[in-house]
Amino acid sequence: MAYADNRFDTRRRALASALAAQRIDALLVTNLIHVRYLTGFSGSNAALLVGKDRTAVIATDGRYTTQIREEVPEIEAIIARPSAEAVLREGGRYDRIGFESEHVTVAQFEALRDVCPEDSTLVPLTGAVEKLRLIKGDYEIDALADVAALATQAMIGLLDDGELAVGRREFEVAADLEYRMRALGAERPSFDTIVASGPNSAKPHHGAGDRVIQDEDLVTIDFGAHRGGFNSDMTRTFVMGRANSTAQSVYATVLQAQRAGIAAARPGTALVDVDKACRDIITDAGYGKNFVHSTGHGIGLEVHEGPSASTSGEGVLAPGMTLTIEPGIYVPGRGGVRIEDTLVITEGAPRVITSGISTDLTVV
Amino acid sequence: MAYADNRFDTRRRALASALAAQRIDALLVTNLIHVRYLTGFSGSNAALLVGKDRTAVIATDGRYTTQIREEVPEIEAIIARPSAEAVLREGGRYDRIGFESEHVTVAQFEALRDVCPEDSTLVPLTGAVEKLRLIKGDYEIDALADVAALATQAMIGLLDDGELAVGRREFEVAADLEYRMRALGAERPSFDTIVASGPNSAKPHHGAGDRVIQDEDLVTIDFGAHRGGFNSDMTRTFVMGRANSTAQSVYATVLQAQRAGIAAARPGTALVDVDKACRDIITDAGYGKNFVHSTGHGIGLEVHEGPSASTSGEGVLAPGMTLTIEPGIYVPGRGGVRIEDTLVITEGAPRVITSGISTDLTVV
Repeated sequence: MAYADNRFDTRRRALASALAAQRIDALLVTNLIHVRYLTGFSGSNAALLVGKDRTAVIATDGRYTTQIREEVPEIEAIIARPSAEAVLREGGRYDRIGFESEHVTVAQFEALRDVCPEDSTLVPLTGAVEKLRLIKGDYEIDALADVAALATQAMIGLLDDGELAVGRREFEVAADLEYRMRALGAERPSFDTIVASGPNSAKPHHGAGDRVIQDEDLVTIDFGAHRGGFNSDMTRTFVMGRANSTAQSVYATVLQAQRAGIAAARPGTALVDVDKACRDIITDAGYGKNFVHSTGHGIGLEVHEGPSASTSGEGVLAPGMTLTIEPGIYVPGRGGVRIEDTLVITEGAPRVITSGISTDLTVV
Repeated sequence: MAYADNRFDTRRRALASALAAQRIDALLVTNLIHVRYLTGFSGSNAALLVGKDRTAVIATDGRYTTQIREEVPEIEAIIARPSAEAVLREGGRYDRIGFESEHVTVAQFEALRDVCPEDSTLVPLTGAVEKLRLIKGDYEIDALADVAALATQAMIGLLDDGELAVGRREFEVAADLEYRMRALGAERPSFDTIVASGPNSAKPHHGAGDRVIQDEDLVTIDFGAHRGGFNSDMTRTFVMGRANSTAQSVYATVLQAQRAGIAAARPGTALVDVDKACRDIITDAGYGKNFVHSTGHGIGLEVHEGPSASTSGEGVLAPGMTLTIEPGIYVPGRGGVRIEDTLVITEGAPRVITSGISTDLTVV
């Protein structure tokens, strides 16, 4: 459907200004997430040309003739494929046309060069739309908070109804959680649900397998919902029946690290320092080599987007950014703990949009 | 887990022979589907270098240290990121190193060029692994038939239990179907389930929305399951309560076209002729402009892969290929019908692996 507000036009204006500042006359947008961000079009094939003069032309193929008229009534749509070539050919005359060099393949670039008007030059550009997406507007923050609340509600229902239980298989718990998210209005999980029990919890990216959940297992559940283009992401690690002393100690360390990460997530703080706030606590506890991934990432139209809180994360936090804080400790063959919340950076303390399920050690 | 057979080694040998024939000394494989096809590794970050001498080196990052040892015990694994740069730097000395130009972005290519040994040349290559994947082996056909049977069983259960019903919302039906697939062992749907009712059935790529299913609706359900890397894909269009004469006539035309497509799917037949066999029947019935997509596609590790049965589809069918036959008629604002089965091409009549649910007009 078309939106009553003009958020897409506002974004295209911001992009046009950014292009003008970089002496780019138009940007060929081929990343579908970016097409959606700039127009609202949600189909699986499209390309968009946005001029620094704020004009825009979009192309898709015959499957989406009806849908593009409904979703993007305000932009001229070309029905043709390959769509990128079509907007490049028919989208207007520009001297310097930027293309998204982190998304266009070498083969596609060759094809674009073949149809590019002779008096135009294709200029590789990185991060133009990504940079706009870094700072979320009120609408996006509301949508992200809503989808996070939906996922949280599904998880609470799962726990309340005893669907996380000894004797059940990992994939059964995952299926129940996904069904609950779907029933609450999610279009799909935002990524493959992780239910990692016992030794599987030592694999940060285990999926959800056949393993039967046992007494004293650590069970890490990392999950999210996708709705209207937006994603959520949170993780809790539960203990089944009884927590032995190692589990208690590892859990306490991860929780302390996660709280330190949240406390550090203030505007002006360097992303590397957010990572360091988490990592130092885990390293000091002797588990530095067991924290094998970065501390967190932005989330929005993609599950993983900028900024990145890691040992090499660039830049500083600003209000309107999103960030997960998700430290973990993984002991191969034994088990692991990860605790993850999603934050929205504000002028003051960050807003935790995945609240509603305690991060205290929970014995199920 | 590691596989007892040597299918991955067999595939790498076939690739090595193909490389040697093209005077390429090694292929840098960065498409994750291809990495999985050639090694069995199922993680979300990896790169592989396969020499024409059959040597292979794989790289992934620290999240997958345990997993890559379990899934790919027979290949030396480098734990480093960016992984493509790592295998290029450390994977051995080769003169001409192919890269997958349809998958490597312009920006990534620049980064690869920066680390490429001075006496090596990066050579763009297209379709090397795709060509191997076109012809499925017995294991793949069994796996595809199994996952198709799983999805079919889920759909039969849905129908038997009356979960497709007037008064229910599209997304509720989709959620039930997905839960059934999950409970039968699917890791996820192979794509977003389509439940397109009434006027929504006129949109070939409608998802599953809020609309309440009404009496006399056409309801198109296009769905598939994903398990162990393999995908299924099938579509049925049902009529709720009563089929009016237009619906009956459109349905009969699509069914006739679909049967003609299946009948045409023999080894040696050009893909354009398979498409024509379907399309001619729809065109002759006066609905040519309402069949807005191609007739079908291969399926395997990807939902859409080669070959392509379309007006521009290249090549001819051969035993071991898979192909969907999915003609449709879409009347904007009114409704639509699509009927889709997945075939495995054999020496004789094709094997329909999505059997078990009649394609005759079914009134629910």
